[in-house]
Amino acid sequence: MLRLQSAFLFDLDGTLIDSVYQHVLAWHEALANEHIELSVWRIHRKIGMSGGLFANMLLRETGLAIEPERIDRLQQHHAAAYKRRIAHVHPLPGAKALLSFLTDAEIPWAIATSGRMETAGPAMETLGVDLSRVPVVTRDLVKYAKPDPDLFLAAAERLGIDISACFVVGDSVWDMLAAQRARALGVGVLSGGYGLEELERAGAYRVFEDPAQLLKHIDELGARR
Amino acid sequence: MLRLQSAFLFDLDGTLIDSVYQHVLAWHEALANEHIELSVWRIHRKIGMSGGLFANMLLRETGLAIEPERIDRLQQHHAAAYKRRIAHVHPLPGAKALLSFLTDAEIPWAIATSGRMETAGPAMETLGVDLSRVPVVTRDLVKYAKPDPDLFLAAAERLGIDISACFVVGDSVWDMLAAQRARALGVGVLSGGYGLEELERAGAYRVFEDPAQLLKHIDELGARR
Repeated sequence: MLRLQSAFLFDLDGTLIDSVYQHVLAWHEALANEHIELSVWRIHRKIGMSGGLFANMLLRETGLAIEPERIDRLQQHHAAAYKRRIAHVHPLPGAKALLSFLTDAEIPWAIATSGRMETAGPAMETLGVDLSRVPVVTRDLVKYAKPDPDLFLAAAERLGIDISACFVVGDSVWDMLAAQRARALGVGVLSGGYGLEELERAGAYRVFEDPAQLLKHIDELGARR
Repeated sequence: MLRLQSAFLFDLDGTLIDSVYQHVLAWHEALANEHIELSVWRIHRKIGMSGGLFANMLLRETGLAIEPERIDRLQQHHAAAYKRRIAHVHPLPGAKALLSFLTDAEIPWAIATSGRMETAGPAMETLGVDLSRVPVVTRDLVKYAKPDPDLFLAAAERLGIDISACFVVGDSVWDMLAAQRARALGVGVLSGGYGLEELERAGAYRVFEDPAQLLKHIDELGARR
């Protein structure tokens, strides 16, 4: 009997790397630098969106016109402010073990992140991701980021696996919504700081605390040890 | 006919002041300084607890023995790390307007915070709280902090109002649980970064986005304009 080959597509920030709160405060600082006042929790709730949608959200929630030059300045300031915080950013518990387990079990996996290679690169280094073997799709490589499904579709294609056989693992509602649009199953983790119910309401098939707990339950996702 | 005199007891961080994420990362830094690795989202979920319970949580979630001297060092490092971030901490939208409205309408209100006067003092200054008129109960003044009800009970006593006539406004599940134990009604705000459902499950009577939205709906809490 043919068993369905399953695969895992991982978001990066908040899912494998404990970086969400640093990104949130880096955006808060970048916005303040442009004299844009936005409550920190509202930024947290939008993190992981594409830059374009993030700008539209700013426009909607602040009533300000956000010109392309300003977006560029914001992104540059964010990258610099994040870099200043990077010494405190580490892999989440279980992240490295989970990726090693999948590699050893020959279960295909890839990374699909709304971040750009500039900030995602160092994160992947701390995880020990072998970029010559693991497909990594960053924001730079697709036209639309989450909650559009493009990042995950591209990652599945790079693996040569049908998207409907993939689990999309992410920490934000944007990951879970993108998973639904891609017809993958979304698996949520709480390590990005969102509530359990937010992820469930966005369509999560299962929610775990972090990669360590996901690994403990990996057989429930069809990956046999 | 006698109408019930209602009153408002406010938490500070995340409820009136946009300071939760800075506190979270200041704790993360203080813990790293003691070589205690704890995911940032777990710290976020425990913020607003009493220091003693926070230490018990550390003990439970890290398996480390946390001696009193270490707690002292942690608290000092946290205060210093928070102070470095204070330039980016501002009142939440609507916070000053809400407090002014209550003062003008002669509706009694007080502040009850798990923080210590050292960090709460500057926050209250940015809010323009007149400490000669407004009762402020800080962690220094009661034996047990949230989710024990002592802070809110002390604040109601200082106002001379029965606790069961008070609304407790807070951003965390610890505020909502303390409100239940005090037999007050808990009103949640999302501005501390917790999910709506988390607050509802902890017993919130109503949940608003932030002080600005609460003020718009203040007549639903019995305060007539």
